[in-house]
Amino acid sequence: MSDPKPPAVILMDPQLAENIGAAARAMANFGLSDLRIVRPRDGWPQEKAWVSASGADWPLDNARICKTVDEAVADLQLIYAATARPRETQLPIFTPRQAMPELRKASGEGLACAIMFGPERAGLETADIALTHGIITVPVDERFRSLNLAQTVAVCCYEWRTSLLDAPREAFHHNIDPPVTGEAMIGLYEQLEAELDDAGFFHPPEKKPSMQRNLRIALGRARFTDQELRTFRGVVTALSKGRGRVLAKRAAALLEQQKSAGKT
Amino acid sequence: MSDPKPPAVILMDPQLAENIGAAARAMANFGLSDLRIVRPRDGWPQEKAWVSASGADWPLDNARICKTVDEAVADLQLIYAATARPRETQLPIFTPRQAMPELRKASGEGLACAIMFGPERAGLETADIALTHGIITVPVDERFRSLNLAQTVAVCCYEWRTSLLDAPREAFHHNIDPPVTGEAMIGLYEQLEAELDDAGFFHPPEKKPSMQRNLRIALGRARFTDQELRTFRGVVTALSKGRGRVLAKRAAALLEQQKSAGKT
Repeated sequence: MSDPKPPAVILMDPQLAENIGAAARAMANFGLSDLRIVRPRDGWPQEKAWVSASGADWPLDNARICKTVDEAVADLQLIYAATARPRETQLPIFTPRQAMPELRKASGEGLACAIMFGPERAGLETADIALTHGIITVPVDERFRSLNLAQTVAVCCYEWRTSLLDAPREAFHHNIDPPVTGEAMIGLYEQLEAELDDAGFFHPPEKKPSMQRNLRIALGRARFTDQELRTFRGVVTALSKGRGRVLAKRAAALLEQQKSAGKT
Repeated sequence: MSDPKPPAVILMDPQLAENIGAAARAMANFGLSDLRIVRPRDGWPQEKAWVSASGADWPLDNARICKTVDEAVADLQLIYAATARPRETQLPIFTPRQAMPELRKASGEGLACAIMFGPERAGLETADIALTHGIITVPVDERFRSLNLAQTVAVCCYEWRTSLLDAPREAFHHNIDPPVTGEAMIGLYEQLEAELDDAGFFHPPEKKPSMQRNLRIALGRARFTDQELRTFRGVVTALSKGRGRVLAKRAAALLEQQKSAGKT
């Protein structure tokens, strides 16, 4: 069995081309190559990125430029979010060292994996984190927490490679069916959220974004298989249509009552 | 017992102020602060370093600027050289992960420790490596080995902190006397090399630098205690004076022979 495929690196809204290039260089140093850039602030391509990559051109040459996070995660099955801020979220939190063996194992089982990084200052949006399955927090000193984006990428890529070198050379094997892709999960989320909207679930309206995120995180953690996803979409459909049927039934019953009342 | 003191970071002949600043930032991220800069190419201080440190000013504000490597290592007792190129040298070679528990243990025993980094392109000189006690090699992908200086510093500092967090909270204790400082060892080397020069040891002359290096490495590995150092300096003195006495004796014997020959 060959080495597990390295995870993709997703840069969300990166501001500086220098950082994108430095991230590409670190990726090349540690054997990663699949770079996805969501909404680079200053457009793409940018000469400065290639300059700061110092010859590590291939991640940049082949980088996928995405308009949305959905596009970036469409084919992915296991995504970890690298973010400095621990958040109140029901996702497991790893150090880079703890996270990489998990990614390695998943990748060895054939899953498409990725690490998602936030923009330079703001860090990742909670809505983006909600599409991931775990959080990677670099153990920084409390007195100076502000990590450079490319340094964070470097530490994670370094840990990926170290985990690979440390891994026992045993064959990986499936024990359960693989989870579905990000695209499939987003399809489910959107179906579910539309139905919940119709049902007046998101109340008060200003809480809708956080309610959606919490739902996505909880469902995402389940890591549905293809069969489970289809089952779950069926569940949503059944529930929403079922609700229609229940309402129709009640209305009919009410009508019936009124009719009877009119007769007497 | 308090936490072990973090190692110093020695930057040998760094070229770009941006890299010095980025290194300082990574140091601050992971709790290191003692920065020593040997011959910064563009002088010192440099505004650009502070800009790229993004607020991690204190390693820069307090940086020690050195004219020679001897000055930088003068007070140090355990130094590892971070260098990408594995060299034919009789020093132990560590990954960052393997090296940091060693530094942590030594620092916990009260030794002054450091990690030495080479300039951007060239890497460390063998003469500088000869003053260290081990080599740290970041496990890069063969296809793209060229690591950015600040990224290398970041990976090492990250490993220092991770090693600290992973360390069992047991008290460190001395079991042997601490090794002497770099200054003391250089004193010994210089005494020894001067004596060897006099003795015509360095032959052919063009091999002198590499012969010196190999000697320094071998002696450095011994990690002399203060008592041992004094003993060893005494050894050098005794041997060199002894050589004088032997020569004098031989000369006297020769003279005696000639005299006897003249008589017969």
